[in-house]
Amino acid sequence: MNKTQAYNTKHRERYLDELMEFLRIPSVSADPNHAEDMMKAARFVSSQLQQAGADRVEIMATEGHPIVYGERMLSPDLPTVLVYGHYDVQPPDPLDLWHSAPFEPVVKPTEKHPQGAIFARGSSDDKGQVFMHIKAFEAMNKTGELPCNVKFMIEGEEEVGSAHLGPFAAAHKDLLQCDVIVVSDTGIIDNQTPVITVGLRGLSYVEIELTGPNRDLHSGLYGGAVANPINILSEMIAGLVDENRKVTIPGFYNDVLTVSDEERAEMNKAPFELKAYLEDLEIDAPCGETGYTTLERTTIRPSLDANGIWGGYTGKGAKTVLPSKAFAKISMRLVPNQNSEKIAKLFKEYFESIAPDCVKANVTYLHGGEPYVMPIDSEGYQAGYKAMKKTFGKAPIPMRSGGSIPIIPLFEEVLGVKSILLGFGLDSDLIHSPNEHFGLFNFYKGIETIPWFFRYYSELMG
Amino acid sequence: MNKTQAYNTKHRERYLDELMEFLRIPSVSADPNHAEDMMKAARFVSSQLQQAGADRVEIMATEGHPIVYGERMLSPDLPTVLVYGHYDVQPPDPLDLWHSAPFEPVVKPTEKHPQGAIFARGSSDDKGQVFMHIKAFEAMNKTGELPCNVKFMIEGEEEVGSAHLGPFAAAHKDLLQCDVIVVSDTGIIDNQTPVITVGLRGLSYVEIELTGPNRDLHSGLYGGAVANPINILSEMIAGLVDENRKVTIPGFYNDVLTVSDEERAEMNKAPFELKAYLEDLEIDAPCGETGYTTLERTTIRPSLDANGIWGGYTGKGAKTVLPSKAFAKISMRLVPNQNSEKIAKLFKEYFESIAPDCVKANVTYLHGGEPYVMPIDSEGYQAGYKAMKKTFGKAPIPMRSGGSIPIIPLFEEVLGVKSILLGFGLDSDLIHSPNEHFGLFNFYKGIETIPWFFRYYSELMG
Repeated sequence: MNKTQAYNTKHRERYLDELMEFLRIPSVSADPNHAEDMMKAARFVSSQLQQAGADRVEIMATEGHPIVYGERMLSPDLPTVLVYGHYDVQPPDPLDLWHSAPFEPVVKPTEKHPQGAIFARGSSDDKGQVFMHIKAFEAMNKTGELPCNVKFMIEGEEEVGSAHLGPFAAAHKDLLQCDVIVVSDTGIIDNQTPVITVGLRGLSYVEIELTGPNRDLHSGLYGGAVANPINILSEMIAGLVDENRKVTIPGFYNDVLTVSDEERAEMNKAPFELKAYLEDLEIDAPCGETGYTTLERTTIRPSLDANGIWGGYTGKGAKTVLPSKAFAKISMRLVPNQNSEKIAKLFKEYFESIAPDCVKANVTYLHGGEPYVMPIDSEGYQAGYKAMKKTFGKAPIPMRSGGSIPIIPLFEEVLGVKSILLGFGLDSDLIHSPNEHFGLFNFYKGIETIPWFFRYYSELMG
Repeated sequence: MNKTQAYNTKHRERYLDELMEFLRIPSVSADPNHAEDMMKAARFVSSQLQQAGADRVEIMATEGHPIVYGERMLSPDLPTVLVYGHYDVQPPDPLDLWHSAPFEPVVKPTEKHPQGAIFARGSSDDKGQVFMHIKAFEAMNKTGELPCNVKFMIEGEEEVGSAHLGPFAAAHKDLLQCDVIVVSDTGIIDNQTPVITVGLRGLSYVEIELTGPNRDLHSGLYGGAVANPINILSEMIAGLVDENRKVTIPGFYNDVLTVSDEERAEMNKAPFELKAYLEDLEIDAPCGETGYTTLERTTIRPSLDANGIWGGYTGKGAKTVLPSKAFAKISMRLVPNQNSEKIAKLFKEYFESIAPDCVKANVTYLHGGEPYVMPIDSEGYQAGYKAMKKTFGKAPIPMRSGGSIPIIPLFEEVLGVKSILLGFGLDSDLIHSPNEHFGLFNFYKGIETIPWFFRYYSELMG
């Protein structure tokens, strides 16, 4: 891999310039106003794959945003690695909390990144990490050191639930045939402590519309006699957890796999300092299910969060309105063996059943994904382990993540292939928040590590 | 009053055209973007008073929006009536629910107004009703039938709490000296059933900011371990009422004057049909404090309503954010002898005390006003009673309103003068809501009734 690494070193500056160009495209999949930008981002990925040496590249239409497919097939006798990632990003709001514009990337040093970090929406999640793969692929190609077949599938709907990727995979099983899927959309503990993510939570996301009177009312003339949908919605949301912060939806925990005391003890050996965690978030206390540690609460236990709420007058000053409607977005993170659609159904049934007769509740299922676990004795995990140990000089820790990548369990179901989650971000990257960033160290470390993954994986399969 | 009424009949069309002009000015006091429009509305009122025959008119600056003062002083020996009203209006949102633009008035018939109603923000609350007084004043002046001295004080901050009117009144006690204040900012039961409002609820309006983590977080990585301010805010709002929908704030009911069973029985004889009330609002059930009727809940009992709530992602689609902050606006309607500042203080103390240690709660008092009762044996009430009986052909019913006009009790405190609430709107006018309107019948009936009020009041005082 010497030539590959020398090539990387030589082209460092250009790699960064090209990533900046990618980050300037506001490919917000949730916002219909950015449809054009989505196509622009897809074309950018496609052209990059072509220049990197793919022998087939295609922007493939779906009923939603398109999927960029690329491949370089050396020989049917060699193993095939499929790289999955996404070119779409989260909405950037609230805009006023960004220190620089979300789609005008700048490099600035931070406490954790003295060498600098790229600030832009999507820098860590996931454009920066997708781009590590494209550049590693380019380096291996240009130096003749690519050891196996490679396929790329870069989608544009990860941040809105990947609704069209499952049907796409099912319809293109032959095209996508591979031995392992590699995904860089997760993180490491810090730049000295590599991690391989071996578990993901699932997700069930719903939206609630609560209707009281048929119109906004004057809160003086009607207040006290007519149900206020904001008050009632608050009461209903409050009723979703009990005093131990356990979810009260009947059946919610039925399918939760109990993790053994031994495994829990092992998990809790991972480097974690509650004091530093609280200081980083500037909170006085954690808040979660009684009987579990913070690490457990975000990995092996399901959770329920209101992601948004709105209703009535939200402008400046005072308006004495008793509103007709109130709304909330609520998501539940799931663990093995919970099922996203089943949980959404339980939520809907329960929530609509607890609505008092003075309001009408309507729950809509927006999207979901299943939880996932990666076995550490697989070739994929082992190759990732060796590659990180090589480039970090330290063995990576297998850890579960609290996040969800709904397509990972779906790939296993549809393509019968496991995924290795080889991510290089940090928890402090502020993904999904204002001022998202990605360390230059992490970007280049990814480009350095990925070719080793390909080498070790080919050897283990050889 | 024959000449006055003939004058009114002759100038009907012009009266309406001029009101339309008034309604076209978007004088939204809550919105700083409308500062220019506020001044424009003040100038409109001032010019109208001048044309109507006032011998002194002044736009008087305050620290907020200006107050329009006008007067016609016939003789120090005659009684003086002060007309109070407001030229500011509520914000028009949600705009998409209006069938015609809020500041482009149109006249359309409705079920309750077969002769037509004027649709515009402020048509009933309060520009249309202020304008009845200006036109009645014009008619009495032009025909030489004005029986007493008149003063006008039309303010621009009623919809945001009249913060500068109290200090203004205190600083201009001599200027504002009068025998009675007449206010048309309330309503009648229907066009065949006149009402004089003899009670108003007070108001205490607060805004809540709840802060969890110092930044928006990814709900997957942190969900289940870090307090979500939306969930916690919901729980805290839910805790403000108990299962009987009594407010749980300690001391909240301490100063509530108990209304005797006799008076309650009398009140409940007022025309009210729960079935029609529910049908009008399209709700299946009322919702309020156990042990009280709907009429009682909105008049002799205090209430608590969330007027707005917001936090997290409220756009289209799904964003998996665990937000840093959540907000709510909450108002409490008060009854004699509750005090607005005392209640706000009790709210703040209680709300901040129930915040769990994983969040920080901050409550800001926005504004308030005191409850009010008008004695029915006063000359003001008696004159209003006779005037309405004359023009409606039916004695008006004395009723309490659930709304608040904070300046009324303040006038009594500062000027030592009671107010007669001689309003001509209907509950169905949709004040504070989209599609606010004011019946032409009501507009002209007001202009017809007001001169009789002046006549009877002068006689009773003479």
